[in-house]
Amino acid sequence: MLDVIDRKRNGHQLSDQELAFFVQGVVEGTIPDYQISALLMAIYFQGMTDEEQASLTMKMLASGDQLDLSTISGVKVDKHSTGGVGDKTSLPLAAMVAALGIPVPMISGRGLGHTGGTLDKLEAIPGYRIALSEAEFINQVSQDGLAIVGATGEVAPADKKIYALRDVTDTVDSIPLIASSIMSKKIASGTDALVIDVKTGAGAFMKTLDDSRALAKALVTIGQQVGLDCNAIISDMNQPLGNKIGNALEIEETIDLLKGQGPADLLELVLTLGSYMAVMGGKAADLEQGRAKLSQTIEDGSALAKFKQLVIDQGGDARVIEDYTVMPQAKYKIAYQANRSGVLAKLTADEIGKAAMVLGGGRQQAEDQLDYAVGIELHKKLGDPVETGEPILTIYSNQPEIQDALALLDDGIEIADQVEVPDLIHEVIE
Amino acid sequence: MLDVIDRKRNGHQLSDQELAFFVQGVVEGTIPDYQISALLMAIYFQGMTDEEQASLTMKMLASGDQLDLSTISGVKVDKHSTGGVGDKTSLPLAAMVAALGIPVPMISGRGLGHTGGTLDKLEAIPGYRIALSEAEFINQVSQDGLAIVGATGEVAPADKKIYALRDVTDTVDSIPLIASSIMSKKIASGTDALVIDVKTGAGAFMKTLDDSRALAKALVTIGQQVGLDCNAIISDMNQPLGNKIGNALEIEETIDLLKGQGPADLLELVLTLGSYMAVMGGKAADLEQGRAKLSQTIEDGSALAKFKQLVIDQGGDARVIEDYTVMPQAKYKIAYQANRSGVLAKLTADEIGKAAMVLGGGRQQAEDQLDYAVGIELHKKLGDPVETGEPILTIYSNQPEIQDALALLDDGIEIADQVEVPDLIHEVIE
Repeated sequence: MLDVIDRKRNGHQLSDQELAFFVQGVVEGTIPDYQISALLMAIYFQGMTDEEQASLTMKMLASGDQLDLSTISGVKVDKHSTGGVGDKTSLPLAAMVAALGIPVPMISGRGLGHTGGTLDKLEAIPGYRIALSEAEFINQVSQDGLAIVGATGEVAPADKKIYALRDVTDTVDSIPLIASSIMSKKIASGTDALVIDVKTGAGAFMKTLDDSRALAKALVTIGQQVGLDCNAIISDMNQPLGNKIGNALEIEETIDLLKGQGPADLLELVLTLGSYMAVMGGKAADLEQGRAKLSQTIEDGSALAKFKQLVIDQGGDARVIEDYTVMPQAKYKIAYQANRSGVLAKLTADEIGKAAMVLGGGRQQAEDQLDYAVGIELHKKLGDPVETGEPILTIYSNQPEIQDALALLDDGIEIADQVEVPDLIHEVIE
Repeated sequence: MLDVIDRKRNGHQLSDQELAFFVQGVVEGTIPDYQISALLMAIYFQGMTDEEQASLTMKMLASGDQLDLSTISGVKVDKHSTGGVGDKTSLPLAAMVAALGIPVPMISGRGLGHTGGTLDKLEAIPGYRIALSEAEFINQVSQDGLAIVGATGEVAPADKKIYALRDVTDTVDSIPLIASSIMSKKIASGTDALVIDVKTGAGAFMKTLDDSRALAKALVTIGQQVGLDCNAIISDMNQPLGNKIGNALEIEETIDLLKGQGPADLLELVLTLGSYMAVMGGKAADLEQGRAKLSQTIEDGSALAKFKQLVIDQGGDARVIEDYTVMPQAKYKIAYQANRSGVLAKLTADEIGKAAMVLGGGRQQAEDQLDYAVGIELHKKLGDPVETGEPILTIYSNQPEIQDALALLDDGIEIADQVEVPDLIHEVIE
């Protein structure tokens, strides 16, 4: 192991054998943590070549269980996001793409931070089971074209161990390590094609467009190296996505969108990501056709029906489609008003997300219980005109004391005379 | 700690408080090894400023016991070497400087690798006790001007822990870490002034002159920052120093030199280092006068008498001065002959040192027992003319099988038509 650290520290490319030795040693516990962390820091400084990233990805993948979806016919497509505030994109997107007849076997995660992850949001629907057996999962995708579940088995245990160490050794923000971590888990899910939403901006893991672009390129390059059809979109995360932030609130917005009443930014992102998935899945000749067909799934109700079927299949209360009050409801709804007139110039995703978290909508620690009812509903977005006293947003809370959330909102919100609103879609990396 | 790692990783200067927190956490065991090693690797890449190096040195120093030598009158001087093959310099040097009336309270170490350290060499003299109490040590220096002992108490325990981790995380060769490690231990020994012999070349820890210069500058700069009078000499370690390599053999060469029969290179290095010590110790107006006075200690026998007194004081068999056979003697003396005529063009210190080690003269593991008798005596040095069949060196062994040593010597020795011999003294850093 000392030789492996030394070669990486001195800027050499690690061989397939060296990376296999490293990953195996991590899983078997034969390499001590202090040597793993020394190598991680050396990788932080020296980076990794395309070949190394692909090799590390495949070794981490091979360290755990992989799903075999070959019995499901059709080109299976999946979507991954690096995560943002108000980002419920996966939910309407999966339903719309599945409505085109493309099988969507989606394996999602829980969340840490601002709100829950996709699985947490689905659990806001009473009865929804995120834990299906492998056979149930495959059956459901074969029959209804869509399932959204948590990982079963042990996916990339090497990545799990390495991630835990990265978190405490300041080596989280190393692009090769991020990219191989994401891709090892995604490839393990057995998908044939993948579209990745790399967020950029104040509320994203990658704050700058340069970093986001570098990550997107690394992800797509790994995909190319291992033979996975893969594209990445770089989308804006300076302000939250859509208008609703919170677990039940984001299910509401998902259903709203599938009913044709969704916010424009969320719809635009869903159509952009979805059009790539439609082409990858062989259901559209080009992006334009994909976009048109996806819009059609909203207009004809097929995407909403697909979402309803998903809820039914996984044991959820399907009345949610018509009646949001089957989900937990917040006791207090408190308006947050503009303190001057102008245009909304700052609506920082990070602070809005943290406010949702302190209300109980997100986890500060992995073992925290979520309050599905709470969150924030935005009435204004960046660039919108506001007048003194007009509500910018509504706080959904289960307790009357919301000082912490208010302080975060005060930090994150600013009204000015003018503002330049960033584009939603910055770039596409193919 | 994550903040400290992050600041260093991003190239910021760590504050006094941050370094104190780090060193305290290392000693108390409150910082896990994987975070220590991540910081060490970040330091490897980002380096340290002069202030950081001095601060880290003082924090490591403060983590352990420090010797108070204030009751010994006079300017106390010490010498440190980064270590080389055949390097017995400390022994004659200490005796000669002490003979000038400068107190030399020398705290030395054991060795790992080619041969033992200064303490191991002294233990080749039957009866020599390296473990004196603090009071015995101070008394002996006050009375006879010289003692050479092992460290008592717990010197810089933070350094000990950090060094153990550096060794297994490939962060040994970081100049700020090397420099602060050396200086923390040297300052703990209570000396007033210090001359450092930084070796450079194939048999040295620092292989290039650039690296050696950087280390020498770091050491001297730390000395300046903490108020310790300090100079560094960069001396050559491409070939072994002197002619004898091995524990008893190096005691022989020490006594030979003090009798005026030492090899020229060893004498030159001793006089160079010693002249700085003579000036620092206030016994010479300049280097030239220091050198002359030191030569005089050989001619008038006072240095030899000082060394004999040292042996007597510490319980050793003083007959060694006249009769080297009181020390362990090797059973076999085997000549290694030139396979062609020419000049000796390669005599690589590393291979010669390893050959001495495999004969039993050095430790491969810290717990290995030394064979004091074995080693190598050089009859030729770089640039010397040799004829086919002429002995280049003699192997002193206690076993007839010396294949491993011979293979190393074959690798390390080369005869050619001509060679450029490197200078012994490359530079002085003041």
